[in-house]
Amino acid sequence: MEKVNVGSRILGANEQYAMKNIELLAQRKQLCLNMISSPGSGKTTILVRTISDLKGQLRIGVIEGDLQTDIDAQRIRATQAPAIQINTEGACHLSARQVYEALGRLPLDALDAIVIENVGNLVCPAAFELGETGKIVVLSVAEGDDKPVKYPGIFAKSRALLVNKIDLLRGALVEFDLDRVKADARRLNKSIEIFPVCAKSGEGMQNWYDWLGAQVRQSRL
Amino acid sequence: MEKVNVGSRILGANEQYAMKNIELLAQRKQLCLNMISSPGSGKTTILVRTISDLKGQLRIGVIEGDLQTDIDAQRIRATQAPAIQINTEGACHLSARQVYEALGRLPLDALDAIVIENVGNLVCPAAFELGETGKIVVLSVAEGDDKPVKYPGIFAKSRALLVNKIDLLRGALVEFDLDRVKADARRLNKSIEIFPVCAKSGEGMQNWYDWLGAQVRQSRL
Repeated sequence: MEKVNVGSRILGANEQYAMKNIELLAQRKQLCLNMISSPGSGKTTILVRTISDLKGQLRIGVIEGDLQTDIDAQRIRATQAPAIQINTEGACHLSARQVYEALGRLPLDALDAIVIENVGNLVCPAAFELGETGKIVVLSVAEGDDKPVKYPGIFAKSRALLVNKIDLLRGALVEFDLDRVKADARRLNKSIEIFPVCAKSGEGMQNWYDWLGAQVRQSRL
Repeated sequence: MEKVNVGSRILGANEQYAMKNIELLAQRKQLCLNMISSPGSGKTTILVRTISDLKGQLRIGVIEGDLQTDIDAQRIRATQAPAIQINTEGACHLSARQVYEALGRLPLDALDAIVIENVGNLVCPAAFELGETGKIVVLSVAEGDDKPVKYPGIFAKSRALLVNKIDLLRGALVEFDLDRVKADARRLNKSIEIFPVCAKSGEGMQNWYDWLGAQVRQSRL
């Protein structure tokens, strides 16, 4: 009886589609970021504000991953940006195949960058390559400053960390040591860019926009 | 060649240990709650306050699940309560076997209740039975009021929902419609008990303590 290595076969199927996505994006010289965070860190609010503020400068398309509902895709579409909703029906992360199919439905010629908003989950999406150009991680200050130490995988793999909801730091309502988070994240990942932001008010967002623009230009080289 | 159903075999191994846990807890008439939430909702802070406030009334032991570190178990042990740390080394949820082994290391005769603090993840832990008496879900108001709709699984399965960090609702720093969350959670789960709390200040915690005490008494019947 033949021994079947199930682990590598499953990984293989995801990796095949991840490779297709890598090739497609490389051919098109298009930036595609995979945005990962816990539920409720503010991924969609960051995207809505980014798309609105950069209107006329940077055309962003979004792939929205959720267990259920298309609430987030509706919020993106309200900005006029194209958004493809993927419902994972309970699965805890997007697969490369789902992203491959969504890329085929986006108007890629009319876009400067694509952002994949992954399922809200700080653990599993970090382990599944989608063929993206790079990962970015979002952490809300309300989640606490021990998260890079407790969930190191995604911080080690991300190009950038957006520390969101910094408005909550005022009035000391939330205890959060930003310097600790910066030090812990950089211990895991020397080159990670860190942007403290408040997507609701716009505070700190310009630094993120500058970085995003530079990433798009780099993809075009 | 024999066809091997891998899905059910994997589930089977977890379920075997879940059954052992169910039997052990039933024989001992002991309450064991499986606490599930996103990272940073305040699970450990809720437990630390609960253990401290109920000292002399209710003896609680804790099984701590984390990808890495024993930060949370240390916080629990500072209250003098026994805590067993499980490091999942990247896995996104606790398994019934890990809980079975941890139960064997807790001083069960000296405890009125056991709480399993699962890995911070609103998706995967909901799908893995540990043989616990019941699940409880924690949602921080900073995560937003759309979470029951977007992550229905865990809200449908939980006996109680603790809505934490309600101090952030004052001053309108956080937009969060508590009535919407209550309605959405009850649409998924008619019998779910809902406790708005602030574990940091103690606000609302007495209702949760009363419910917890009643659950312990019910287990002893």
